[in-house]
Amino acid sequence: MDARAEMLLFAAARAQLVAEVIAPALRAGKCVVCDRFVDASLAYQGIGRRLGVDVVRAVNAVATGAVMPDLTLLLDIDPSAGLRRARTETEGRIAAGNAGRGDRLEQEHLAFHERVREGFLWLAQNEPHRIKVIDARGPVPAVEWAIRQAVAQILRGREARPGAGGAR
Amino acid sequence: MDARAEMLLFAAARAQLVAEVIAPALRAGKCVVCDRFVDASLAYQGIGRRLGVDVVRAVNAVATGAVMPDLTLLLDIDPSAGLRRARTETEGRIAAGNAGRGDRLEQEHLAFHERVREGFLWLAQNEPHRIKVIDARGPVPAVEWAIRQAVAQILRGREARPGAGGAR
Repeated sequence: MDARAEMLLFAAARAQLVAEVIAPALRAGKCVVCDRFVDASLAYQGIGRRLGVDVVRAVNAVATGAVMPDLTLLLDIDPSAGLRRARTETEGRIAAGNAGRGDRLEQEHLAFHERVREGFLWLAQNEPHRIKVIDARGPVPAVEWAIRQAVAQILRGREARPGAGGAR
Repeated sequence: MDARAEMLLFAAARAQLVAEVIAPALRAGKCVVCDRFVDASLAYQGIGRRLGVDVVRAVNAVATGAVMPDLTLLLDIDPSAGLRRARTETEGRIAAGNAGRGDRLEQEHLAFHERVREGFLWLAQNEPHRIKVIDARGPVPAVEWAIRQAVAQILRGREARPGAGGAR
């Protein structure tokens, strides 16, 4: 598959998700938690596939109507360790009779994942208040603790600025 | 389906078509004839769905790497007559046991198709040298004759400017 086609398919899926689920929830004043959003496309397609961050950002701004998260949690781990975890999980699924061999992006070679990781960390450096890097090497309770702290921090910031968050 | 998602899916399909078929053919010096391209998205999604021509043009420029046709033939007909033809054709397909009821866009109401037609004609007014309006009301031989004339004209223009066309 062409890299541009891949990027545009992710953008199309995201446009539908925003229109159908995310935008109505925000209008209703709800908090939305989402597994991968625009930042993932900036890292995977913009940097990993080398399409350029600006191009991917512009297309995704059209897709989402410029809706962006207040907080992105980047669970950071060395790609070889991350791939080992993904494979163990995939083998679990196969043993359980579910699905195949991970998705198109999981199957990419290690150098691709190294580039994506550098891309994510670069994005986090550029927007340190919005993107929080969580060390994902530790056991689940440690990762959970770090996530709770980052979320609590942004919720405290909201309480201090009444009316600033929630429904946009 | 969300209008932006629809537009992005057409752009994704177009990106794959350019990468896989059109760009290699142009590099090999071939002439490419294509049924609907960027102009169709400008009219259907930009104007028909009201997403705006500039937004749709920008996304499609990413999708195609800015490849644009030297000539677009706009077969113009009153939408009610065009829909009658499309329905007759669809009924023929159903009678023959093929496919369903025309596509998502064919099923739109008449006002949508009127807006798309005005959009196409507006695009042609803005780029009269690239987009030729063909009167499609007549019988097939008359439409064919008009198309042959428009194509012959652009091919003559190319012969006069050696090296200007073909492989880009």
